[in-house]
Amino acid sequence: MKQIDLNCDMGESFGAYQMGADDEVMPHITSANIACGWHAGDPMVMDRTIRMAIANNVNTGAHPGYPDLMGFGRRPMNLSPVEIRNYIIYQVGALQGFCSVHNTRVSHVKPHGSLYLKAVENEDIAKSIAEGIVNVSQEIAFIALAGEKGKIMAKVGEEFGLRVIYEAFPDRAYTPDGNLAPRSQEGSVKTDPSEIAERALMMAEEGKIIDTQGNTIEIQAETLCLHGDTVHAGILVRTIRQALEKAGINVKPVLDLVG
Amino acid sequence: MKQIDLNCDMGESFGAYQMGADDEVMPHITSANIACGWHAGDPMVMDRTIRMAIANNVNTGAHPGYPDLMGFGRRPMNLSPVEIRNYIIYQVGALQGFCSVHNTRVSHVKPHGSLYLKAVENEDIAKSIAEGIVNVSQEIAFIALAGEKGKIMAKVGEEFGLRVIYEAFPDRAYTPDGNLAPRSQEGSVKTDPSEIAERALMMAEEGKIIDTQGNTIEIQAETLCLHGDTVHAGILVRTIRQALEKAGINVKPVLDLVG
Amino acid sequence: MKQIDLNCDMGESFGAYQMGADDEVMPHITSANIACGWHAGDPMVMDRTIRMAIANNVNTGAHPGYPDLMGFGRRPMNLSPVEIRNYIIYQVGALQGFCSVHNTRVSHVKPHGSLYLKAVENEDIAKSIAEGIVNVSQEIAFIALAGEKGKIMAKVGEEFGLRVIYEAFPDRAYTPDGNLAPRSQEGSVKTDPSEIAERALMMAEEGKIIDTQGNTIEIQAETLCLHGDTVHAGILVRTIRQALEKAGINVKPVLDLVG
Amino acid sequence: MKQIDLNCDMGESFGAYQMGADDEVMPHITSANIACGWHAGDPMVMDRTIRMAIANNVNTGAHPGYPDLMGFGRRPMNLSPVEIRNYIIYQVGALQGFCSVHNTRVSHVKPHGSLYLKAVENEDIAKSIAEGIVNVSQEIAFIALAGEKGKIMAKVGEEFGLRVIYEAFPDRAYTPDGNLAPRSQEGSVKTDPSEIAERALMMAEEGKIIDTQGNTIEIQAETLCLHGDTVHAGILVRTIRQALEKAGINVKPVLDLVG
Repeated sequence: MKQIDLNCDMGESFGAYQMGADDEVMPHITSANIACGWHAGDPMVMDRTIRMAIANNVNTGAHPGYPDLMGFGRRPMNLSPVEIRNYIIYQVGALQGFCSVHNTRVSHVKPHGSLYLKAVENEDIAKSIAEGIVNVSQEIAFIALAGEKGKIMAKVGEEFGLRVIYEAFPDRAYTPDGNLAPRSQEGSVKTDPSEIAERALMMAEEGKIIDTQGNTIEIQAETLCLHGDTVHAGILVRTIRQALEKAGINVKPVLDLVG
Repeated sequence: MKQIDLNCDMGESFGAYQMGADDEVMPHITSANIACGWHAGDPMVMDRTIRMAIANNVNTGAHPGYPDLMGFGRRPMNLSPVEIRNYIIYQVGALQGFCSVHNTRVSHVKPHGSLYLKAVENEDIAKSIAEGIVNVSQEIAFIALAGEKGKIMAKVGEEFGLRVIYEAFPDRAYTPDGNLAPRSQEGSVKTDPSEIAERALMMAEEGKIIDTQGNTIEIQAETLCLHGDTVHAGILVRTIRQALEKAGINVKPVLDLVG
Repeated sequence: MKQIDLNCDMGESFGAYQMGADDEVMPHITSANIACGWHAGDPMVMDRTIRMAIANNVNTGAHPGYPDLMGFGRRPMNLSPVEIRNYIIYQVGALQGFCSVHNTRVSHVKPHGSLYLKAVENEDIAKSIAEGIVNVSQEIAFIALAGEKGKIMAKVGEEFGLRVIYEAFPDRAYTPDGNLAPRSQEGSVKTDPSEIAERALMMAEEGKIIDTQGNTIEIQAETLCLHGDTVHAGILVRTIRQALEKAGINVKPVLDLVG
Repeated sequence: MKQIDLNCDMGESFGAYQMGADDEVMPHITSANIACGWHAGDPMVMDRTIRMAIANNVNTGAHPGYPDLMGFGRRPMNLSPVEIRNYIIYQVGALQGFCSVHNTRVSHVKPHGSLYLKAVENEDIAKSIAEGIVNVSQEIAFIALAGEKGKIMAKVGEEFGLRVIYEAFPDRAYTPDGNLAPRSQEGSVKTDPSEIAERALMMAEEGKIIDTQGNTIEIQAETLCLHGDTVHAGILVRTIRQALEKAGINVKPVLDLVG
């Protein structure tokens, strides 16, 4: 029986500011990437999010980002390797504090925003992140982009002895070489729940996707990234999960930490 | 053989801003209260401070404070109990991240600045702090003010099953009822190294101190708090340690985690 | 012909975080209290908000708050008088920068959240705020709470030579002594648009309101505070304005700066 | 009679953190570049610094930087042109608030750290800064790097109708093409007060400097940048000023705003 993990960025509210439909999305995913208070999130939000994840048997991963709340971690910053390593340790450690309350642990790390994009392209940055993770705990998994472009992250993660988990994006178009089509390209971001569900199913069932040329290409991934910040995020995520389960896919966390 | 622990606030630099003479002080103390990035400190400073503490067989405690870098955590803020609990978990967790790098752990928690002063007087605040600590790990000790006024903190710490460590201040004057004389009172803060060393010795050797009336009163403490932010902090701390050791006091960490 | 000003807190979004329905509310109010980047708001939001206010002939006031984005300026902080004065100067100056772009100026200052509540009760804090305002420009008006409790703010404002503008709250219940009924009291916050519109009309037309005992009391105010952060804020504000105008009230800014 | 302006970065302390020897330096310079609370400085420091500048007949310029206190504005950040414009307006406006207290105004703007370096090389960034300045007030001067490399900034400033002031660095080595030798190059940063004073004099008197090849090249500047963050900054700055005055140079602010 095939299985797949569904991950989603969670806990991105901050103080009086609400973001995302966490309440509606959490019951349908299996891994949460939880903001750690730098680009988003705060201790109150982290506590609430971890609690909700535990209650829904969802794995509690860290989603560390730049120290740039005003830019939501999306603006590239030139940080030194040791700064990146230490920022990862700090944020993963802080989230682990909240995991400890519930006798669980940080399951995985997925860098956020510009830090993720840089890690995909720059081996030194990927190394700094991996070093930060392994310094906190060798048991924490490292999310890497599936396809050609994600190979740097994956190689680095393996060199550091980390469990690497490839992720694919069912709501994004893929080019023939297996990379994400740029967001600027028309049709590169899908919004129709049935279309996304269909693509998610093809990824989970066959390890394949239809590329921008209409050809079937391979895309091996253990987890699929869904988005929880759209208006109908709850419906979208539920639709995808139900489509997967109806087709006999076992939707469950990659790592067996909860439930 | 009598023993005593010497604690000092460390790691209070931030970014390009230097504070304290950590390099000079660290070799002579046995417990560091390390700022966690909120009222002071940042991940680079935390990493450096933990490293230096480990190299000097100094226990690595957390010194969490308010989210008020501009006020250095010294300005009272009205936080709810759950906010305080979560801010403690966040900061202690973050420091634990850096401790994990060196296979050690957060030895103790000493709240910083206004948060400490409030915990001394307000049982609810002391409880929120203790709950935050115990939620991260029951093994972490809780520093409480020695003397009458510290009894609230100590009682709360014990109720939560935490190891409570009383601390006294050899550079502060004590009133006949065993409390700290207010800073506004003349002579309430000692600056002469020999006088402070003498007072530290009396505390460590006899569990006593001469109060503001000239009488000898009891003051039981396992750790003495020294200050590392004065001009000659290195000399001051070394003088105190040497005086203690010369008198046959065993200067060592309360908890046996390092060395 | 009677006239009234309608003020509303605006520009409370921050970075990727949206708050309030500014687009819908702005066309119906006459004075905007614009967040200045400390408890809420950022330079992008301030620029956009000023632009929108100018386009709608709305006066551009400053809404300075505590340096506490995480607490949205609602948590009491113990600041010294000179800190408050300087924080006011900084925030009002920053907003004036954006007003200068459009050849206008900061019309008024209304302190935000906990700072407002403290100014109502504490003369020293009211003085620090007034001093900050007058130090930037004597032409900026000072919003004070209408009724008994607002007399401290008003007196202080007048002593500093500032134009004082009393404000009343049509969506809040008033006690027989002309003060706001505490929020904790049932029925103290009105949400029905027609009821609020009716109360606003009575305030604007007669300078009176029905208190919690059912008696008519006096409440003299030149501006009425509306709330823009509810779900149907646009409809609410429009309803109130239309009711006022239908009854022949001239709804216009207190100060003649725009349009 | 030749004249020259001496500028220095001031007001870089933050909260409890001290930076620079402002007290010792201020009496000897003629233009202060004052941090505006983003990469350094806070309202208390700004107030104190403006006060000290006024008392010493020193021009009060703004030194705006990135929203990155942890990195002291030295780490490159990818900001959009409109973000840069708005960040300039915000910071210059805030400083103007404090200038208003003393019936003076922001005399000039010199971008800080990485923002300055980017403006030197990137016309779009220089434009965003100039637009921000001119939007607050056309009367504020724009500091540009003297020599070949500064021509972009100068051209942009002139296009926006700003008064452009070229600055040179007497403590930095210049290459034969009139640019600053990279800091990484040995001998590129001078520290000997007499050598720096001699170079400053040659710049002020002849508009020339000896380059790294030993040849005399032209370097036209109205202001010389001195550094106030070294151990003996007060002595250094005094030495330079005295050498200039002894040689008959009129050391005074470029713009006649004070005294």
